[in-house]
Parts: sequence; structure tokens; C-alpha cells
Amino acid sequence: MDNCTSINKSVSLNMNIRGMGPSATLAINEISKKLQKDKKAVYRLGLGQSPFPVPVPVVDALKANAEKKDYLSPRGLPELRESVSEFHHRKDGLNVKPEHVLIGPGSKELMFLLQLVYYGEILIPSPCWVSYIPQARIIGRQVQIIPTRFEDRWKVTAEGLDRICGREKDRYRPRILILNYPANPDGCTYTDGQLRDLAEVAKKYQILILSDEIYGQLHHRGLHISVARYYPEGTILSSGISKWCGAGGWRLGTFTFPAELEWLLDAMAAVASETYTSVSAPIQFAAVHAFLNDQRIERYLWHVRRVLCQLGMICYDMLSRAGMRVWAPEGGFYLFPDFSPYRDHLEKRGITGGAEQLCERLLEETGVAVLPGSAFARPPDELSARMAYVDFDGAKALTASETVPLDRPLPDNFSKQIGSNVIQAVEIMIEWIRQ
Amino acid sequence: MDNCTSINKSVSLNMNIRGMGPSATLAINEISKKLQKDKKAVYRLGLGQSPFPVPVPVVDALKANAEKKDYLSPRGLPELRESVSEFHHRKDGLNVKPEHVLIGPGSKELMFLLQLVYYGEILIPSPCWVSYIPQARIIGRQVQIIPTRFEDRWKVTAEGLDRICGREKDRYRPRILILNYPANPDGCTYTDGQLRDLAEVAKKYQILILSDEIYGQLHHRGLHISVARYYPEGTILSSGISKWCGAGGWRLGTFTFPAELEWLLDAMAAVASETYTSVSAPIQFAAVHAFLNDQRIERYLWHVRRVLCQLGMICYDMLSRAGMRVWAPEGGFYLFPDFSPYRDHLEKRGITGGAEQLCERLLEETGVAVLPGSAFARPPDELSARMAYVDFDGAKALTASETVPLDRPLPDNFSKQIGSNVIQAVEIMIEWIRQ
Repeated sequence: MDNCTSINKSVSLNMNIRGMGPSATLAINEISKKLQKDKKAVYRLGLGQSPFPVPVPVVDALKANAEKKDYLSPRGLPELRESVSEFHHRKDGLNVKPEHVLIGPGSKELMFLLQLVYYGEILIPSPCWVSYIPQARIIGRQVQIIPTRFEDRWKVTAEGLDRICGREKDRYRPRILILNYPANPDGCTYTDGQLRDLAEVAKKYQILILSDEIYGQLHHRGLHISVARYYPEGTILSSGISKWCGAGGWRLGTFTFPAELEWLLDAMAAVASETYTSVSAPIQFAAVHAFLNDQRIERYLWHVRRVLCQLGMICYDMLSRAGMRVWAPEGGFYLFPDFSPYRDHLEKRGITGGAEQLCERLLEETGVAVLPGSAFARPPDELSARMAYVDFDGAKALTASETVPLDRPLPDNFSKQIGSNVIQAVEIMIEWIRQ
Repeated sequence: MDNCTSINKSVSLNMNIRGMGPSATLAINEISKKLQKDKKAVYRLGLGQSPFPVPVPVVDALKANAEKKDYLSPRGLPELRESVSEFHHRKDGLNVKPEHVLIGPGSKELMFLLQLVYYGEILIPSPCWVSYIPQARIIGRQVQIIPTRFEDRWKVTAEGLDRICGREKDRYRPRILILNYPANPDGCTYTDGQLRDLAEVAKKYQILILSDEIYGQLHHRGLHISVARYYPEGTILSSGISKWCGAGGWRLGTFTFPAELEWLLDAMAAVASETYTSVSAPIQFAAVHAFLNDQRIERYLWHVRRVLCQLGMICYDMLSRAGMRVWAPEGGFYLFPDFSPYRDHLEKRGITGGAEQLCERLLEETGVAVLPGSAFARPPDELSARMAYVDFDGAKALTASETVPLDRPLPDNFSKQIGSNVIQAVEIMIEWIRQ
């Protein structure tokens, strides 16, 4: 058998998958866990998981639906698709029919299915979320990275997109542009006008937009706008309960389609029925309650936003004052500082291997875990890194925030108490960079 | 935009997916639902779903773990992998290490990932479960169907496998043989000796075996044996909680690997981390309790087996006495009658279009839903069909069975009361065939 497995091993792994490891965010999480096991203090700013508990009415709904056991439709539970459709109407001013909603085991899986069924190229602005590019690689799809600049808040501009598309020989070949805002890894979002301009360019070149709005409800001021407003016929809106609802581990994502793209929805549902079949029934019945117009959910959301906004701004101020290139966060729970002002200083300490080496050394020498910009498709020698300011007790933060009326700001020392670990990590990081 | 979508639609769907509909079992379920909406009596012998509730300790565990919200490892919750490993040790006499267990959102999804990461050909005995072949088609893998005969209880023989492999020019190219027993769609299983002989042939040609044992615990006499006993180094054992634990809609499947195939497990886990990430956390915490050595689960299993065995045998007797070619069920909840003794008779009534037309006419004219053999890779003109004898109230059946000690047989009239709908459907079907 040794002979057999060695034969099989050498020839029988899909070339698109050979050499792939676990995704970068999960990998850093594993390293952090290991350090913790060795009783070393670890500041876990690596994994991008909401620290807040799932809202009580949603957890209660899961308990009440624990005995649900039927296979559900690959497209999703009808009540859930209705509740998602109403949610996007209420929150985003969009008219999405329930039959144009698709429920999946995480929006990541739905993105994979989309790349699998769609035969075309994927356009991805960099920096971008860690999994878009590996997914394309697994399927063997062509990816075109669109570079962005710090000066543009790491956002693709309409002019930039127009320039890239205009210089192509085959201008109208099938393409999907992935936009993600508020963004992972940088916490910045697009303005209303920027979205309108991008929509114009997408229309001009007949490009579909996959609009990843998983952090939409975590816009710190509740002012999220979807590009689907300006390009409804060509936009697939991706969302789910992982971030704003604290239910990352539950695995439930949503796609909404325009009527014009029903053929894509149909193809994805056909593949869903041959792969994961449907999303876990108890989870779907419970998720209905996450999307309902419920004041308890609304209040939860405003508290979450307020806590993230204050802590994010404090971290931003510290980094900014220490001379890092960084933007103030507008949504979600990430900052994406660029340490290049300290490049010479770091090189003198032997850190010449770009962000990856920087993050490794930082983790080893201080216990602060952040992810290198290279994991987000930035050039490997750029000294950028993502920090997720989520290493705090979300349940405690929520309880504390609830004692302060929502129409008043949190007291100045709120984050210093609740987010002391995060703030300490930023202090340690700054000190280490400067040392 | 009309112009745009028409351009995209015509060129931008993956050719492997164009023309795919929902899987055949789900499709017949949709038709049945429609008939029910029109207030027509429908006998739902189409969809293969366990009618029994999820055991109480497992439902209770889901309630107790409803607030679990962390992303879990792509390989699965460590406690669950441990409990699955112990389960296969206890039930199948196999030594599987917890680190060689992989948890997925249904074994169907894991099979898809396996086909995706493995670069080789798939060997599938016919009749076979509906989704193996569409999965290969989506990924673009080569499939070789191995025909079987009614006389061999629809099972591939060691001689048959040897003949097929022996005549190949490239005898040692990477291949996976999929075995499923007790089988969907026919309810038959392999004997100990047959498994040993098949294992020998697989070793000879260095073929991997994907052993789909999802109905293993539903062997009616609790006598399931895994081929992994005879070919541990080359067998991947596939199972889950969908069938024996009544939790189809929960979506949790398991793969166990030998140490020799760790490279396949690693590759699948890497793809999992870029697609569905991990299985829903509350579901995994609950599933731990399904695999534990718990007398309540054991008793549940014995009641389920006893109910299925009696009802299955009654249906078999009726079909057999009416002159159909059919085997007595040994496990699971399917019968796979072949109506060819009535071929001339049926042709006179215009049924010349094989099993598909037979099943359509049967459903339309009597409300009895069964699935055509063609959905299970049988030749389209063969008059075989799968009936799932599950259209009864499983909770009621369980409660009734619990009043009869497990060391005594169920009273003769048990199935007539509990399974009256199924028995009536078989009567109607026989009458309709003969009319």
C-alpha cells in the first residue's frame, strides 16, 4: 500500500489545490491558540470575528426550533427569504423579491458557488478579503487585481476602473467586480457619489457587481448605502448574520439577485442541491428572527455600532499620532495601518521581509497577533497589516453600553475599561515598532 | 441592460452546469407538494427522509448549545471528532484517530469536496444514489458506471470489478470506487465475504474506496459491516446523522480517513476553509451527543430498525406476491422494484417511455410518488423505481414501538396501523400496474 499511496499522492491531487493551506486568518488564529496554550499572553487582533453575543431573540428562536429536522429547499426557507427581502427593503431601500433571495451556509460558500457557475473573469480591488482569490484559484478562474492607493482610502475609483476596462481588447467579456464595503481589511467605505460613479462604469462595460455588504449594518453611524441602488439590474448583494448579528459560527449567508440575473440564481441553486443541499433547518428558522423588524435587534445594533466606533477611533488616534499611515474606521471592526514611515527603522532591526515577517516578529516578540497586508493581496513588501479590534468581552460591553442612553455618547473611559486589552495591544505594537 | 444580460446569459454559464436542474429526489418532492396544494391525496414515497424525530438527548443538546457562536475549525469541533472516532470504534470495530475525522455540512458536500480535490476517475456501480454523477459532472471528472444485475441484488461483484479494471490499458491510474450499503435505492447490502473480495480487487488495482455508509446504523438487524475492516489503508468511510439519527435537515456529515490518506484530508480541509468554513457551531455541539455511547440513543436505534424492518418486509411481500422483481430489504428504508414482468401490459396502456413515464403516470393517476430507476443511473427503458417507505408519522411509530419490549417482535397489525398510508400506496400501485 505504501507504493499505492505514493503513486496516488504524487499524481492525484487537483493541481489547483496542491500547496494550499488553511486560509490566512484561520492560520494566524491557530498560532495564537498555540501561544496561549504555552501560557503566553496573546492579543488576538487576528481573526475577524464579532465579539458580541447573538441577540437574545435569535438565540431563543434557535432553542424553540431545535426539533426542526426536515430537509429545506436549496434556495432557503420561504419565511427566511421573505424576512431577508423585507430587511433589505427596510434597511437599503431595495426592492428584492423573496424568490430572488438565496440562503447559503455562509456568504463565503455562496461566493464560491457563484465563481463556480459563472464563466468569466473576476475583478478584485486590493486590499481585499482573504478568500476571494483562493476561491478563484480552486475553480481555475482568471483573476484581475485592481490596485488601489492609500490616498483613495484603499478604494477603487470610477476613473481607475474605467481605465482598466477601457484598455482591454475584449471590453465586453463576462466579468464580475467584487466590491466590499465597509471593507475588510480597512474599515473604510464608499460615499454615495463614489458608488454612483462606479455603477456607471460597470454599466458601461456590462460588468456584474458582487457587492459584499457583510459589514453593511456595522457602518458606525448606520449610514450604509448599497451600490444596488444605482445598478440594481447588475448587482448581486451579499450579506448574512456573521458580522452584525454576531453569529459567524452559525454559518448563514444571503445573496439577493435582480430579476435579470435569475439564471445565475437558478444555476447556483442547482449546484447547491448537489452539494450542501440546504442550510441547517434549526439555524434557518432562528435566522428569520434576526431579519425581522424588532426593536430589540435595532437597539442591539446601535449599541454594537457605538462600542465599535469609540474603540476604533481611539485605536486610530493612537496609531495616527504615532505616525502610521492609517484611515479612521467608518464601519466594521478593522484598521489597516501601513507602517512604512518606520521602514528604515525596522530594516535596521532586520525586518526586511515585508509585512509577513513584520507580523511574525510582532507576534513572537509581543504576543500581538495581526495579519499581514499580503494576506489581503497587497504587495508583499508593503508594510501594511490588518488589526481586528475585537479582543474584548462583547457581552460585557453590551451590558455596559445599555446603561448609557443611545442618544448620549459613551463616557470617555468606556473603551479604556471595556477594550483595555485592545488598547494595550496597540500601545505595545506602537512601542515595539518604535523601539 | 437587456442587451447586457442576454450577452452574459448566452456565454457566461459554466458549461458543466448548463441545463442542470434541482436533483431528481428534490424535484419529485416539489411536484408532490404541488399536488397536495391542489388538495389531491399524495403518497410521498419519493423523498428519502427519515420519518423519525431527532432523539431527545440530541435535541436537548442543541437547545443547551444555542448560544455557541464561534467559528469552529474547518475540520470540525475536537469533541465531535473524538465522539465520531469512538463511535466507529464501538460500532464498526475500526481504529480511526480523532484527527482523521472530518466534519462537513452533510456527507454530500464532503463527497463533492473529495471529487474536487482528487484528480482521478470515479467508478460508480449502478443503481446508485442520485448525486454522485451530477457532482462529477459539475467538476468535470470522468465517471465510469459499473453495471450490476438484479440477480446480484444490484451489487457489484469482485469478479465484475476485476474484469472491468483488468481490461484497462492504464490499470493503475488514480480511481475512486464509490460503494453504498445498505444501499440507496435498493435496501440491499454486501455480505462480509463480498466486502472482503471487493477489498482484494481494490488493493490489486490500487483503487481508493469511498464507502458511503450513511445507512449503516439502519441495517435492520444491526449487523452492518464496513469494508474498511478489510481495506483500512484505502477506504474513506462516509457517514453522518441524516438517516439513522433523523437529522437530515440539520446538515452534518462525517468522513474518516486512514493515516495513509491524510494528504486528501488536508486538501479537503484547505478547500473547506475557503468555502463553507466550518459546520454550524450549535449543530456540532449537539451532534457530539448523537455519537456518544448512550443507552437512550441505542434504544431509539433498535426501535427505528424494528419499525422499518416490519414495514419494509410487508411492502416487499406485497410487491413480490404481485409478481414484481424485488429484493427483501436488509437496511435503510427503500425498495427498488422492477416492473418489467408487466412491460407488455403497460405498453398496451401507452407506457412505452420507460421508468420516467411510468412514474409520471403513476403520480398523476394515483398520487403515488416514487422515483424512476433512471434517476439512479439505470438504463432509461428499465422499468425500475425506488420507493421510500417513509410516509408515516415517525414520532407516533416510535411511541407505539416503545410499548413493546425490544426482545419481542412487533404485533402483526403494527405496520397496518402505523404504516397504513405506505401500505395503501403499495396496494394502489399494484392495482394500477395490473389494471
